[in-house]
Amino acid sequence: MSLLITQVTVTPIAFPDPPLLNVAGVHQPWALRTIVEVRTDAGVVGIGESYGDQPHLDLMNRAAAGLVGLDAFDLNGLRARVAEAVGAEDTPAGTGLIGASSNQKTIARVVSPFEVACLDAQGLALERPVSDLLGGRVRDRVSFSAYLFYKWAAHPGAEPDEWGPALDPAGIVAQARQMIDAYGFESIKLKGGVFEPDAEIAAIRALREEFGDHPLRLDPNCGWTPATSIRVAEETTGLLEYLEDPTPGIDGMSEVAQSASMPLATNMCVVAFDHIAEAVAKRAVGVILSDHHYWGGLRASAELAAICRTFGIGLSMHSNTHLGISLAAMTHLAAATPNLEYALDTHTPWQGGVDVVTDPLTFRNGALDVPTTPGLGVTLDRDGLERMHRDYLDCGIRSRDDTGYMRQFEPGFTRRTASW
Amino acid sequence: MSLLITQVTVTPIAFPDPPLLNVAGVHQPWALRTIVEVRTDAGVVGIGESYGDQPHLDLMNRAAAGLVGLDAFDLNGLRARVAEAVGAEDTPAGTGLIGASSNQKTIARVVSPFEVACLDAQGLALERPVSDLLGGRVRDRVSFSAYLFYKWAAHPGAEPDEWGPALDPAGIVAQARQMIDAYGFESIKLKGGVFEPDAEIAAIRALREEFGDHPLRLDPNCGWTPATSIRVAEETTGLLEYLEDPTPGIDGMSEVAQSASMPLATNMCVVAFDHIAEAVAKRAVGVILSDHHYWGGLRASAELAAICRTFGIGLSMHSNTHLGISLAAMTHLAAATPNLEYALDTHTPWQGGVDVVTDPLTFRNGALDVPTTPGLGVTLDRDGLERMHRDYLDCGIRSRDDTGYMRQFEPGFTRRTASW
Ligand SMILES: [Mg+2]
Ligand SMILES: [Mg+2]
Repeated sequence: MSLLITQVTVTPIAFPDPPLLNVAGVHQPWALRTIVEVRTDAGVVGIGESYGDQPHLDLMNRAAAGLVGLDAFDLNGLRARVAEAVGAEDTPAGTGLIGASSNQKTIARVVSPFEVACLDAQGLALERPVSDLLGGRVRDRVSFSAYLFYKWAAHPGAEPDEWGPALDPAGIVAQARQMIDAYGFESIKLKGGVFEPDAEIAAIRALREEFGDHPLRLDPNCGWTPATSIRVAEETTGLLEYLEDPTPGIDGMSEVAQSASMPLATNMCVVAFDHIAEAVAKRAVGVILSDHHYWGGLRASAELAAICRTFGIGLSMHSNTHLGISLAAMTHLAAATPNLEYALDTHTPWQGGVDVVTDPLTFRNGALDVPTTPGLGVTLDRDGLERMHRDYLDCGIRSRDDTGYMRQFEPGFTRRTASW
Repeated sequence: MSLLITQVTVTPIAFPDPPLLNVAGVHQPWALRTIVEVRTDAGVVGIGESYGDQPHLDLMNRAAAGLVGLDAFDLNGLRARVAEAVGAEDTPAGTGLIGASSNQKTIARVVSPFEVACLDAQGLALERPVSDLLGGRVRDRVSFSAYLFYKWAAHPGAEPDEWGPALDPAGIVAQARQMIDAYGFESIKLKGGVFEPDAEIAAIRALREEFGDHPLRLDPNCGWTPATSIRVAEETTGLLEYLEDPTPGIDGMSEVAQSASMPLATNMCVVAFDHIAEAVAKRAVGVILSDHHYWGGLRASAELAAICRTFGIGLSMHSNTHLGISLAAMTHLAAATPNLEYALDTHTPWQGGVDVVTDPLTFRNGALDVPTTPGLGVTLDRDGLERMHRDYLDCGIRSRDDTGYMRQFEPGFTRRTASW
């Protein structure tokens, strides 16, 4: 079977995003993503999804030019070609929420959407779901968590969104209720690092009060010092399934982990393979949140899973703002990963039903059925892609900048890393 | 594409083996292997190869019965079904040379030939080489090492084999010359643990003298104490690319590794995923010899490779006595493994051209071309299989027993683990 890449298309898009608060500031009115399409000589077209920031977009475009003629089965070759295209570049991830940049991380980020698209193309050509190409699904349904955010009622000057404000424990509980009623999630994650820690502890207590048996997580994105983290861990003992990135760095996490009763989770201090050995040696993390967008694709994420299994580290899954191609990719990966013990994070509820696929996976009881149709099991909405690309051109945003946007309303705002 | 397993055949075979000496005794006149065939509803038949010892054969037969109806893409499902069939069994590997037994190791060993056969079937059905199913080949040729053994001229009472005796440095050098002339190998490995360490050091010096620039390895299969190992490491400084399993156990290896100038390699103290964390923590090994026969197949071996890459551990490949199906599987795995830095071990030269495939891969300049034809790229010789199965039935050997065989000629012989 021939499956040579004949054409690669890279399309940046934008779509509305609510004013979600985090340690870096607040989400801008438009979120950016990039959709890649990989055409093959077998006639099938694989699709993938990634970040939309300009430096990353530039590198994806540079890499795409070198992929024509590559065999879509040759994923090692894909990585080699991307590495060559990326060269010594070291561009930051747009969010700034997944740690410092490096050349290896840059390569992994650029590989990811093309690898997903190649696997989608393989699956389409073989008439097998992507999970089969990852070893076969070990579960038919994949559970996700309710991902709560402190938020404003609306972007300044705009109409209120469907979620309303959430700026205190009551607002967070109301948001959780709305999201769980609509999606059926079990685990609940609160994005913290927005208010001083006692306010966020109060929100966790309020959630525990309202949702007696739902596992809870708190993620302040390194907003706290180690000392504050140790205190919060103590005060939330018995309340959390894990505490996520309370403080920056492997050394800081290691210090907190020594006394914390719950596992510490991370998608900020262990975000590439070359962070793992030190984190293991220092017993810094109990759970790693994988994310195929920056670990280098689905197969690299499966390798991360094998490492976690081997070293007794728990495995969960991280999410940035994303659309339905990434949701399908996450679901196939999770389906084929035996040791994914935690419900996955997703931003899907925040996208207001907007998507770039015609047939998005839909939540039932907090979980998705793993697609059993060929490839990823989702179909690119070409009209929607075109419309969202025009929105990209029109919106004027070229890189995510939560901090800059926040400063429009709060001029003295600075990112709150380790500030409490 | 449907690829359901319709029938599984498990055939034990025997073939002549020369009197190779090792720490456990001497190879018996017949070596045992088992060939598995996995028939599918697509018409293709995948093949795999494993050990032939009775307890392992019994488990493979038990597992085979449960595989009909399994999707040959569902390798996670394969593992689950094998685990169920194996239950709590804990059978030793026949050789006794790859460490103590465990239930997890037993499962991994039983999974392996079926996983290889499923990948072969996938490749045949998709018309893609197995290396493509492992991420694509990163090299077109795979290098192997000259695997030297002390040996008798012949099995007692039999005609001398083509290799003649090798019981001193001159004999080892002659054997190396004969093997390198025939196969073109670069790296040279001496199986030690047979004579007292100074005699084996002398053989290494003689090899260095004769083969100035060939990388050398010495593997006494844990024949030495830590103190002896430290002394041998000192005396062979600058001579070896690695020293393999000088002494038993992770603690012993760790002690030796502290002073040894060369990496310590192992296929005896780190032979399953649950050994790795301790070995890393204790810095016990610098190189792990992978072996898909006991690590659980080609995909599990790729996971091991990812772990080695992540923790800065070198990767080489181990060999027991094997035939052409395993040689092809090893070659595809090596081709798709970026960080396989060392030439692979193989027993192929010792099998005198006997094989169970009609089209064995052939060495040129110490390396094999990676097959680019569908599946493993080798074809089962059904007449040969039948003949070798009759030899199995006739030879009377049902489990490998190097020690028992040695005692027929040297009644007081005991396995020489840590005996020097
Ligand atoms: Mg996080
Ligand atoms: Mg060995």
